[in-house]
Amino acid sequence: MSKVRVTAFSVSLDGYGAGLRQDLQNPLGLRGTELHNWFFHTEVFKKIQGQSGGATGVDNDFAAKSFESVGAWIMGRNMFGPVRGPWPTTGDPWKGWWGDNPPFHAPVFVLTHHARSPLAMAGGTTFHFVTDGPESALKQANQAAGGKDVRIGGGVSVLRQYLAAGVIDEMHFALSPVLLGAGEHLFFDINLHQLGFEVVRTVTGENATHVFIEKK
Amino acid sequence: MSKVRVTAFSVSLDGYGAGLRQDLQNPLGLRGTELHNWFFHTEVFKKIQGQSGGATGVDNDFAAKSFESVGAWIMGRNMFGPVRGPWPTTGDPWKGWWGDNPPFHAPVFVLTHHARSPLAMAGGTTFHFVTDGPESALKQANQAAGGKDVRIGGGVSVLRQYLAAGVIDEMHFALSPVLLGAGEHLFFDINLHQLGFEVVRTVTGENATHVFIEKK
Repeated sequence: MSKVRVTAFSVSLDGYGAGLRQDLQNPLGLRGTELHNWFFHTEVFKKIQGQSGGATGVDNDFAAKSFESVGAWIMGRNMFGPVRGPWPTTGDPWKGWWGDNPPFHAPVFVLTHHARSPLAMAGGTTFHFVTDGPESALKQANQAAGGKDVRIGGGVSVLRQYLAAGVIDEMHFALSPVLLGAGEHLFFDINLHQLGFEVVRTVTGENATHVFIEKK
Repeated sequence: MSKVRVTAFSVSLDGYGAGLRQDLQNPLGLRGTELHNWFFHTEVFKKIQGQSGGATGVDNDFAAKSFESVGAWIMGRNMFGPVRGPWPTTGDPWKGWWGDNPPFHAPVFVLTHHARSPLAMAGGTTFHFVTDGPESALKQANQAAGGKDVRIGGGVSVLRQYLAAGVIDEMHFALSPVLLGAGEHLFFDINLHQLGFEVVRTVTGENATHVFIEKK
């Protein structure tokens, strides 16, 4: 059964999913990278970077699982890049943070207010730019996923929109032992209990605590 | 060296330290008791209740530690009881949630806007009602603690006031695997990083994840 899931989504102890002021130098906002330290240590991440080494263990296992059975991705435009407003028609076009061979290896639906032609990358990733809203993006992602899961990549605002819409089946948060203090808060003013979610499992990793949340 | 500390303070995974609508039936607000399940299982808690049994282990060890070296407590009026407004002068006076022999065994300074004479209980607990604000309460608690620590008991609003005042040295949160969804949020709109705190240790207990935060 195909699911809509959030996986390996890093959150600070105080509930922030991204730092302030994302830009080209800070793809995850100020200090946002600290949220992902658990992931940067893993063998899975090193492989994505074309490197060898990296830690195996609990964190690495969950990092690997997060990429399994994903038939399509959805992400917000800010997760795709720092460009704002219409896509520039001159110069090198922005192709995401991930180089020529992004780690998605599947169709990725990018929510944006500005139309752009699909962008096919190496390794099976194609970015599709969706201008008619999250519901349409999810419909397209479901069709493209071919029975596999749809993974909501982020960021926080996109995740909260899909949560509020009631379409997410399960979530896996990697709770990082850092205090971000400011940024995009994941939990405040969104009632996960009322939305039907409960914590089903907590697993301690080497550098994060993995929390699994499902719809009752 | 005497410290001002927050210890064994239960927080939901989504950052709430208490539920909505505290009253006589819900001392911790709606579903607030779920935050404290880890504690209710412990031998320490059973002993406080005059019962035998209860679990030993990590959670119990931290529950025990939370009562060690505490020379004085500070709490808000809502933690002391459900009474609002002036203290009633007729009928049985409210003496706290904890029966004749409260588990504090030390002076407890209760922040309130309404004056009341000190209330001496069995076992060494005396409730002092402080009407001239948190700074005064801390001063009195420091004097009364006789070189031991001052423990800020709660609730959330009191904790946040002392955090904002910059007087708390260390905190131990028991992160419970529940989603409260609504209530008093501990972390939103208070910048623990800017206040100089960092996570120094995370320990997995049987029914909660214990997070230790200190001033740099």
